[in-house]
Amino acid sequence: MRTFAELSPSPRTILTPGPVEVDPRVLRALSYPILGQFDPEFTALMNDTMEMLRQLFRTDNRWAYPVDGTSRSGIEAVLTSLIEPGDRVLVPIYGRFGHLLHEIAERCGAEVTTIEKEWGTVFEPEEIVAAIKRTKPAVVALVHGETSTGRLQPLEEIGRACRELDVLLVVDAVATIGGVPVEADAWHLDAVVGGTQKCLSVPSGMSPITYNERAERKVLSRKRVERGLRGPDYSAPAEERRPIQSNYLDLAQLQDYWSPARLNHHTEMTSMLYGLREGLRIALAEGLDARFARHRLHESALVAGLRAMGVAFYGDPACKLPVVTCVTIPEGIDGESVRSMLLDLFGIEIASSFGPLKGKIWRIGTMGYSCSRKNVLHFLGAFEAVLLRHGFRLPAGAALQAALDVYDAAKEG
Amino acid sequence: MRTFAELSPSPRTILTPGPVEVDPRVLRALSYPILGQFDPEFTALMNDTMEMLRQLFRTDNRWAYPVDGTSRSGIEAVLTSLIEPGDRVLVPIYGRFGHLLHEIAERCGAEVTTIEKEWGTVFEPEEIVAAIKRTKPAVVALVHGETSTGRLQPLEEIGRACRELDVLLVVDAVATIGGVPVEADAWHLDAVVGGTQKCLSVPSGMSPITYNERAERKVLSRKRVERGLRGPDYSAPAEERRPIQSNYLDLAQLQDYWSPARLNHHTEMTSMLYGLREGLRIALAEGLDARFARHRLHESALVAGLRAMGVAFYGDPACKLPVVTCVTIPEGIDGESVRSMLLDLFGIEIASSFGPLKGKIWRIGTMGYSCSRKNVLHFLGAFEAVLLRHGFRLPAGAALQAALDVYDAAKEG
Repeated sequence: MRTFAELSPSPRTILTPGPVEVDPRVLRALSYPILGQFDPEFTALMNDTMEMLRQLFRTDNRWAYPVDGTSRSGIEAVLTSLIEPGDRVLVPIYGRFGHLLHEIAERCGAEVTTIEKEWGTVFEPEEIVAAIKRTKPAVVALVHGETSTGRLQPLEEIGRACRELDVLLVVDAVATIGGVPVEADAWHLDAVVGGTQKCLSVPSGMSPITYNERAERKVLSRKRVERGLRGPDYSAPAEERRPIQSNYLDLAQLQDYWSPARLNHHTEMTSMLYGLREGLRIALAEGLDARFARHRLHESALVAGLRAMGVAFYGDPACKLPVVTCVTIPEGIDGESVRSMLLDLFGIEIASSFGPLKGKIWRIGTMGYSCSRKNVLHFLGAFEAVLLRHGFRLPAGAALQAALDVYDAAKEG
Repeated sequence: MRTFAELSPSPRTILTPGPVEVDPRVLRALSYPILGQFDPEFTALMNDTMEMLRQLFRTDNRWAYPVDGTSRSGIEAVLTSLIEPGDRVLVPIYGRFGHLLHEIAERCGAEVTTIEKEWGTVFEPEEIVAAIKRTKPAVVALVHGETSTGRLQPLEEIGRACRELDVLLVVDAVATIGGVPVEADAWHLDAVVGGTQKCLSVPSGMSPITYNERAERKVLSRKRVERGLRGPDYSAPAEERRPIQSNYLDLAQLQDYWSPARLNHHTEMTSMLYGLREGLRIALAEGLDARFARHRLHESALVAGLRAMGVAFYGDPACKLPVVTCVTIPEGIDGESVRSMLLDLFGIEIASSFGPLKGKIWRIGTMGYSCSRKNVLHFLGAFEAVLLRHGFRLPAGAALQAALDVYDAAKEG
């Protein structure tokens, strides 16, 4: 029988749109001995996490907690809890993850209407508002930061319109939370889903969500107490609506578990919760505004370096996502060969993309702990060498000088 | 704004039916820097994990991989992928987690028939076989080790009957995997769901599953390629069956992600995968049979000690689950007060139970890394002191002597 080698992962510089490098303090938190799920010390850590998530989402919502799964578990939990079969749902799509919202909403039994923008652009608010007025949806589901194309959809006007028209607005902020401003309350977002493995720099495994009372009312109207936990006097609500089709992702049950009642549901992921709590603590200690500024600074240096190299950028610069930079793969260069050489020789990982963009662009993430001067500079030096090795003509040495200029200017400013 | 304290969990002796103490080698694995999800080094670790899971489940199935969520995510993934709305499903119930299978199957749209046994007992195989013949289900869903009552349901005869009658048998082995024999192939189990946070001693957060070709055929008949990943030439199967209602828990998509095609789905939980791989490595290095014997030994010592104390055991001893020991709370003793004193003064956690057993029994787990001589002896000494403190009359000192006798006899044997 085969024996399995000791775990010994190689060190990596991870400049993808996620998962990215994890802060060593978070890694340390993951290694602490566990507490039982109902140990008062542990439930206190759960409560800390809720309080910090409210700050992260910039909300006074009562409910802000992680769903125990990767980011799409949070998206599905929100959609499956809010969407009753037959509900009309509008999904504006401008990249791969819009298609995912469509897919999930459809599986929830929604009557989905989609509107699409060419990849590389985003919607004008009035385009979405017009579609809302035309289709009268119960829910609009929209991606904030689309990593597949590196675009950022402004939300403020759309949020205001949804509130006025009494539509629930669900936002996928997986790629933006902790790296780009996300204002749940100020922008009137009814439910927001974040990710851990991107700008928060916690490993993949939890999906922080928040939702307001408007969303909660819909969830509670479909609530059922779990079989096996019902008391002898339990009776279903007289006018029971269609129950939530998932038990694992049922927000009505999850919020009972996260409430002082602590009604047993799943067994909370201890180590991941330790990691998330520590990641949030680090993000809030840095300060969200300082953190957003840090992401913009390193993006500027990266873009300046790439521009000096003479590569072309993909997509409309007016709506560029600050934490992902998309570069068009130059004619005649094998994009996967470049990525492999970066990984194998320099230990640097960048990403390709999906669907129509497969083989067309590279995506370089500058997220969370990976978003650092050291990483940007190492990457530019390595990328230049690898592009030269692939026969791409560029002004040698210019990229790093341009990036260093940005850092110098920032120091002076 | 409130500042949050440094993470510093108290050391605990965890003798619940899960989550239990985590092997320090697993904790160390959790703290290693991450790799990207498509990094060849990482996908090699995913493949290692699949290979070790096959050994753990004692199966030659192609598919054995973790679902990214807590144990009930694995249960729901299997049920929601196998059950089409309208399918008849039989759920034999003998404790809380049978009710959970009922609940989940119902949410998948199944026409569920349940048969129930009094809590504290299990089914005779012929009772289940008779119900199968009567109700002709597509799927039977059954709990192997019921932690709410501490009972173990023998599966071999039921598995044989299901195969003969061409019924899919889905088994919840969350509590037993790695601590009590689970023979996926020899017992003809079509799908088995395990847990990490019990006898494997990995933190909660993943649910290892396996399923055979019979189950896979049903899953694939409902397969759809995710929107946003479909090529331009994609067309839905001509006779499309009802699609799987979850995207996150869709085994057809998950197995593509775990196959050499690596079709993008979620972002695999890096650190949890490190932990699971290490936990499996440790379990297989100990040897499954040696591991089962260890669990039986410490159970014997625990039971001998408790018996010497004069407490009563709950449930039918003929079907006792070796890794959970249920003690009836003596008349006049406040069960929660005993549990609190154990936790607060001795740092030892034991469990209460659910539903009709709430306040009636304590449940003491001896699982995985928590299942050790040191823990059993510490617990018996502490439990004696706490019971005395609560006015329970017992022969002081007898418990530890009885347990030590068991360990001495084992050494001689």
